[in-house]
Amino acid sequence: MDESNNAPFAYEGLDRVIHERARLGVLTSLVAHQKGLIFGDLRDLCGLTDGNLSRHLHVLQEAGLVEITKGFAHNRPQTVCRITDLGRARYLDYLSVLEQVVRDAAKAVSDAGLPSPATA
Amino acid sequence: MDESNNAPFAYEGLDRVIHERARLGVLTSLVAHQKGLIFGDLRDLCGLTDGNLSRHLHVLQEAGLVEITKGFAHNRPQTVCRITDLGRARYLDYLSVLEQVVRDAAKAVSDAGLPSPATA
Repeated sequence: MDESNNAPFAYEGLDRVIHERARLGVLTSLVAHQKGLIFGDLRDLCGLTDGNLSRHLHVLQEAGLVEITKGFAHNRPQTVCRITDLGRARYLDYLSVLEQVVRDAAKAVSDAGLPSPATA
Repeated sequence: MDESNNAPFAYEGLDRVIHERARLGVLTSLVAHQKGLIFGDLRDLCGLTDGNLSRHLHVLQEAGLVEITKGFAHNRPQTVCRITDLGRARYLDYLSVLEQVVRDAAKAVSDAGLPSPATA
């Protein structure tokens, strides 16, 4: 919670393009694989269908956060997805706000005397 | 990242009812104010309009996560919003997944040699 903020729980920095659950998974996968991921591997890592992944990649590409390269490997068409420099910068900004949310939430839970969430 | 999971970036535990940005702010506010918040105070804490807050409260109430009490204070109608026991339990579950996302993201950023996000 930013005490200097009039609306401390507004979380405007939670960029909606990134915050959507599937896209958050896609971007986290791509940050973890800087050289890029083949479409099918990215789909499996994120537990998405082809159609869902295509739709979310389109949103991310339109926003300039990922780039899609179509090429060939072993004479078969291959689509490779990579995060862009802008994508990395926006992801880092988003992550700092998400960390703030988790700190606020953990404090609220603690102040309320609730048990801490189970950690994996 | 849960290594035992076939889709480690699926984040299925990010309950969509709670994950939506405005509702995440509303629930965090209500966890931080266990005795409940008057509608206008909750609206201001979350930086929402009356209409937006009403819409999101309706979603949360339908899901059983918040309860809305309409009464009077100083002869004026007053709406008080509180988180329910179910809401608290679901929020804690959500928070444990969100903490996992932040850990995965921080690891991905670190492994990629990117600077850590600026902390507030």
